[in-house]
Amino acid sequence: MVKLVALYMQPPDPAAFDHHYRETHLPLVRKWPGLRRVETGKVTGMPGGGAPPYYFIAEMYFDDENGLRAALRSPEGRAAGDDVQRFASGLVSLLYVQVA
Amino acid sequence: MVKLVALYMQPPDPAAFDHHYRETHLPLVRKWPGLRRVETGKVTGMPGGGAPPYYFIAEMYFDDENGLRAALRSPEGRAAGDDVQRFASGLVSLLYVQVA
Repeated sequence: MVKLVALYMQPPDPAAFDHHYRETHLPLVRKWPGLRRVETGKVTGMPGGGAPPYYFIAEMYFDDENGLRAALRSPEGRAAGDDVQRFASGLVSLLYVQVA
Repeated sequence: MVKLVALYMQPPDPAAFDHHYRETHLPLVRKWPGLRRVETGKVTGMPGGGAPPYYFIAEMYFDDENGLRAALRSPEGRAAGDDVQRFASGLVSLLYVQVA
């Protein structure tokens, strides 16, 4: 199992980010071919306090890395990528992760 | 459901890191009171290439944030925290995440 981990930094307008993610971006992601599961979560803090480096995290699970890469290249993957440019440009880091 | 997300930067000796994590650190984490699940994974790359900002990610799941905070304060939590200082000092960012 592999996952694409999306780490989003603090957006300028959190309420607008939340609304766009939930109403527009997540529905685009859910169309990705081969997607097995999505888990999202909001960062609420850090041990010891301080401002966390990220605001939101999303993880998209696939059977293997070929499937993940194919999903990102697909029309559905490109649509979600284009959408990121609209609502979170410069805010997101994407990581391929091999789940142990 | 909440999780503690641990993001580890590239260690100087990846093989030593892997060995210590698997043989020493993970067994300490598995003793945490209230821990529901652990998911670990190695970062294998990023879309578009380049050096990923992280090497390894671990996620520890709990029923709620009170349970997570209590686990970190417990003797078992402090033992794992002390161990981090031995094998990954300065390499890890910890985030509290409310799973949607």
